[in-house]
Amino acid sequence: MSGASTDTAPTQELRICSHVDRVFALLGKRWTGLVIDLLLQRPARFSELARAVPGLSERVLAERLRELQAAGIVEREVDPGPPITATYRLTEVGQRLGPAIEALRAWAREQVGERRGAPA
Amino acid sequence: MSGASTDTAPTQELRICSHVDRVFALLGKRWTGLVIDLLLQRPARFSELARAVPGLSERVLAERLRELQAAGIVEREVDPGPPITATYRLTEVGQRLGPAIEALRAWAREQVGERRGAPA
Repeated sequence: MSGASTDTAPTQELRICSHVDRVFALLGKRWTGLVIDLLLQRPARFSELARAVPGLSERVLAERLRELQAAGIVEREVDPGPPITATYRLTEVGQRLGPAIEALRAWAREQVGERRGAPA
Repeated sequence: MSGASTDTAPTQELRICSHVDRVFALLGKRWTGLVIDLLLQRPARFSELARAVPGLSERVLAERLRELQAAGIVEREVDPGPPITATYRLTEVGQRLGPAIEALRAWAREQVGERRGAPA
């Protein structure tokens, strides 16, 4: 009977990674990753960000930007007025998310390519 | 007066990336990234995943696993019973998220290191 299954071998207890936990406390919220990806393109005004993401309300965008500022990923700079506007940009720490976001983009792009290239 | 600012230069319209949009339609939900990271460690039963993530209810875990199955990232395999249990594992597509998750982990780890290493 033994040898029929290796499932009874002791397995290591699963443990969450505190680093990944912290990352997804941020990125695991609707819109946050998309806003970071937009700011990887260039600094932008609030209104530009709101316009770029259909379905993202100004209230939620403001909340996400506050969270990203609190996390040291985004900084807000008040433009010389009038009118009073502000520009949001990634901090150096935020810029360093670039490679990870690129890896996610590559993964998604690869899947699209596979579906297109799949035999009918 | 000109030359005082380059802000008036025409700037390119911000556009969301459809690939990043699709990725964060999944990962931009609470717990999803953490569940993927656990399954990168090894395949696991539902009860193991539930136990590993404090605060994640069984109802929400079941929902997230269904979403990940629908996206082709996770597959569910019913174990020979009794008792009837199921094991969840990453598909090949899901495994390919590994490098991106590693990049996020590296980013978070680097930040912790910098805070610790920062001059007082």
